Order: sequence, then C-alpha cells, then structure tokens
Amino acid sequence: MSAGRLATFTAGGKTRYGAITGKGVVDLSARHSEWPTLRQAIEAGALRKLADEAHSFAADFRVEDIAYEIPIPSAEKIICVGVNYPDRNEEYKDGQAAPSNPSLFIRFPRSFVGHGAPLVRPPDSSQLDYEGEIVIVIGKGGRRISEADALGHIAALSLCNEGTIRDWVRHAKFNVTQGKNFDRSGSIGPWLVPFTDEAQIADIGLTTRVNGEVRQQDRTGRMIFSFRKIINYISTFTTLVPGDVIVTGTPTGAGARFEPPIWLKPGDVIEVEADGIGLLRNGVVDEGTAR
Amino acid sequence: MSAGRLATFTAGGKTRYGAITGKGVVDLSARHSEWPTLRQAIEAGALRKLADEAHSFAADFRVEDIAYEIPIPSAEKIICVGVNYPDRNEEYKDGQAAPSNPSLFIRFPRSFVGHGAPLVRPPDSSQLDYEGEIVIVIGKGGRRISEADALGHIAALSLCNEGTIRDWVRHAKFNVTQGKNFDRSGSIGPWLVPFTDEAQIADIGLTTRVNGEVRQQDRTGRMIFSFRKIINYISTFTTLVPGDVIVTGTPTGAGARFEPPIWLKPGDVIEVEADGIGLLRNGVVDEGTAR
Repeated sequence: MSAGRLATFTAGGKTRYGAITGKGVVDLSARHSEWPTLRQAIEAGALRKLADEAHSFAADFRVEDIAYEIPIPSAEKIICVGVNYPDRNEEYKDGQAAPSNPSLFIRFPRSFVGHGAPLVRPPDSSQLDYEGEIVIVIGKGGRRISEADALGHIAALSLCNEGTIRDWVRHAKFNVTQGKNFDRSGSIGPWLVPFTDEAQIADIGLTTRVNGEVRQQDRTGRMIFSFRKIINYISTFTTLVPGDVIVTGTPTGAGARFEPPIWLKPGDVIEVEADGIGLLRNGVVDEGTAR
Repeated sequence: MSAGRLATFTAGGKTRYGAITGKGVVDLSARHSEWPTLRQAIEAGALRKLADEAHSFAADFRVEDIAYEIPIPSAEKIICVGVNYPDRNEEYKDGQAAPSNPSLFIRFPRSFVGHGAPLVRPPDSSQLDYEGEIVIVIGKGGRRISEADALGHIAALSLCNEGTIRDWVRHAKFNVTQGKNFDRSGSIGPWLVPFTDEAQIADIGLTTRVNGEVRQQDRTGRMIFSFRKIINYISTFTTLVPGDVIVTGTPTGAGARFEPPIWLKPGDVIEVEADGIGLLRNGVVDEGTAR
C-alpha cells in the first residue's frame, strides 16, 4: 500500500481535497466538513488519519477528471531557500566558502499552479527557468524550534518546480522578489505525502527533467542546509504555523547554468521527481494563450 | 470634518473595525455583518461609505479602551519597496546612477504590530532599526496596471514603521527576508484614510522621530519611484487584489546611517507622521518582556 497522497483539486466546479488512490480520487472534503481545507486538517493534526481512512471508501472521481490545485492554496507563508546543493563541479572551482546562512525569499500562492497545469511564460521575458525542489509543510507550529525537535514539526512532503523569470531576479539592486513571483510561473504538487519517518527525506534522490532529459539530479543527503537547520533558522525570526510551506532549495543544473542558457518555451514538459514523494509534471504556455 | 479614519482594533476581547472620530470609536463591524473585515469592505468598494456614515452614529468605545491592530490583518500580500528617497547629501557623493527598478521584498503580517503596541527587539540582535514609510492599500485589483490608471486602484493610505533587524538583512548572500520578518518588529497604522484625491499623496511631508528627535524627513514629491510607477511595476508580475498592502519605501536617516549606528532600545518611542494621514507611535520592548 503506497503512502497516502492527499491533493487539493477542482472537480465539478468546486475546490475539494481528497486522496489519490489506485482506484481513483476519494473526495475527503465531502466527508469532513469540520476541515474545509487541507490546511485546516493539518491544523487539527488529522492528515495521517485522512490518508489512512481513504482506503475504506470508493472513488468519487477518476484521476483524469480532476484539476490539481496547489496542495495548500492559502498558506500563511511560502518561504523558499536559495540554491541548497553544492555545485557538482566544485572541486574544480575556486573554493568559495559555503554560506553560513540560507538565503530566503517569499513567494505568493498565486505564483504557482498545480500538477498538470502549464507554467505561464510572461511577455516581459524569455527567461522562464525551472528549479526542482522538495517541499515540507509545517504541521505543528512554533518559534525558535531546535534542530533536534525540527522534524516533529513537519506534517507532509511535496514537490515544487520553483519556476523563475531569471532576468527579473536581478531587476533591482537586491532581492529576487519579482523574478520569483510572476503569476503561475511555478508549480507545487501533485499532492501531500504525510511525513512519518526521517527516512522519507534523509537521503532521497531529486531529479528534474525537461522533455525527458535529466537537468538536475542530486540527493537530499548532500543539502547544504538540512531540513532541521532550515526549520530552526526560519523559526528564529518568524512563528511557523500549521500549513506553512517551505521550499527547500534546488540542486545545480537550472537552465541559467548552461552556456548559452537554455530557457523554457511553450510546449516543453518539466518533471520534478523525488523518491517516495511523486512526480510533478507541467507544460509551458505563453501568457494569454488558451490552456 | 477630518477625513475618515478606519481602524481595525480589539475591544472587549474581539477584533473589530470602526471609525476613530472626535467623539470616540464607532464600531462599524457590528453594523455591517456583510463585511466581516476592512479587507472585505474594501473588496466591496465600501470604504468611503463607511467613513462617511460613521459621523451619524454615537461612539461605542473610548479611544483609550481599544487596542489597535494592523489595518488589514490578513492581506494577501504585503510588498515593500526599498529605500525610495534620494540621499540628502547625494551632491557630495560619487554620483551612482539611480536604480532603474525598485527593490522589492515581502513581509508577513505577523512581522507588524498596530499603533501603540511596542515593537519587539529579539535576543538575536541589538540592531533593531526604524524606517518610516507611507502605505497604500489596493482597492481595485488588476494586472499590468498602467501608470495613468494606477491611482484609481488605491483605496486607502496608512503609515508604516518598517522596523528592521539590520544585521539579519545581510545574513545570507542575497535577500533581506529574515531581517525584515522578525515577529512584531514593525508597525502599520494607526488607521486607513480613504484615498480620494491625488493631492493626498502628491507632495506630502513624511517624518520619523525617535524620542522626539527628527531622524527622517522628506516629501513624497521627491520619491525615486512614484506611487504610479510602483503600482505599475508590481502589477507587471503579480495580480494585485483588494486589500493588498504596498509599503512605499523610506527616506534616508535610518539608525544604520549614523556613525556609529544608533539602534532602537527598550523605552524608545518612535513616531512616523505624514500630512493628512496621521501619526503612528510605538515603543520598544525586549522579546519576552511584558507589554
């Protein structure tokens, strides 16, 4: 039996959440009016219960009849970590000291689409780029969470294509805000996998493919800032709350790293995959183009 | 009759909104269940109506019996512009070209307190600093809003002390996220003043005082990026929605600019004042200290 897969989706003109099972999609939101959203189920500590009980229901929808939304559409915070895996060729380069703290930026929910929906390339730039990343969703809130306790604050895992308009991240003197926040330029999903065991993230493979070609590939065991450190560091300045989304940084190999750079274009298909979490797939369209 | 002053506040253990009048505080949320929050009243285009009708009601609370909250506690976005007024001494410096685009960063609502509540200095740093700024609140949403149309998208004005933990803004290689997001390190308020006329912002004075001493003083007519340009630029990448908060950048004169720097400390009182908008006043306490 696979780990539970809990998705937020639209079906029949309504946003719902439920379990993606081998039999189809079980609408759990219809059975739990006490938790209108996955965020509220997480707040109630009910995510695993939801994943477990799904197996006892018949499917309500076929997978092909739902449209995936991002798993937590109204997270209080989506905090992203900058590049978080060492350069594969670092032994050949000037040994720049590793940064002592993670670089952080914030994305708005509307900068993301769900699994299967196309990323949108805006007319302002041709430099749409991919970044495959692992997402952690906070279950138990807190401030100044110790590294020792950090994993106990994770409710679930997911994936992110942290799509970026590359020239707009250096549009101003500092901060990448604008290049990271174009509407529908990235994706999160397909679903949440409840987090129960450190082995789920301790050293898993993370791969990004464009049109089937591997562009990024690394293992979480090589992360510069560990999941524990990230939670500890972020909670130093802000109180984490249930449903907060942390996008934990990408390996090397984004399109900007190629010489010349390779940008995404309409028709491309990008897949972000991680062991035990799933596969997040999105196409690309130009803004204003029908989906 | 002064321009309307619409505040979000706590009284009798409940968060409410209402008008701050010469007679006291009129609880408008109690009279408008159709708009549970000021954000929803803005969405409905009802802000001026609320401001106007307040004069026909008796006060429900004395001003001294309410605790101000930030005016839009659950804004979808709080977007901040970096320093946005020229250096007063720039004629004596190497003439660095003006930046071509505003530097932007994002703050979470929980990084702010309301008028009258103390800013919180965390134990992680002694470098709590002030930045006085004018706030615009979006009324009519939109994407790719032209400069010509931009002012028609403003619903209201407010003030911000964009309190900053200065050493944490350069904690990592890039992005100021962490130094700008310590819980309760800044303030917004005291209230919203409905925006009806460009003269309200075209060339008004903005002053920041610490313990009565003027530290920042400039006029909006000197802003590097105008209100029109800011709205146009931000809406290029993200869809603005009613209730979005834009903090429009600070003049020179923050504590970091002094030699040696002058940081805020418990007991200090900071006032941010702008013509026709009001006066935002906050003290300072150490984290963990009773208010």
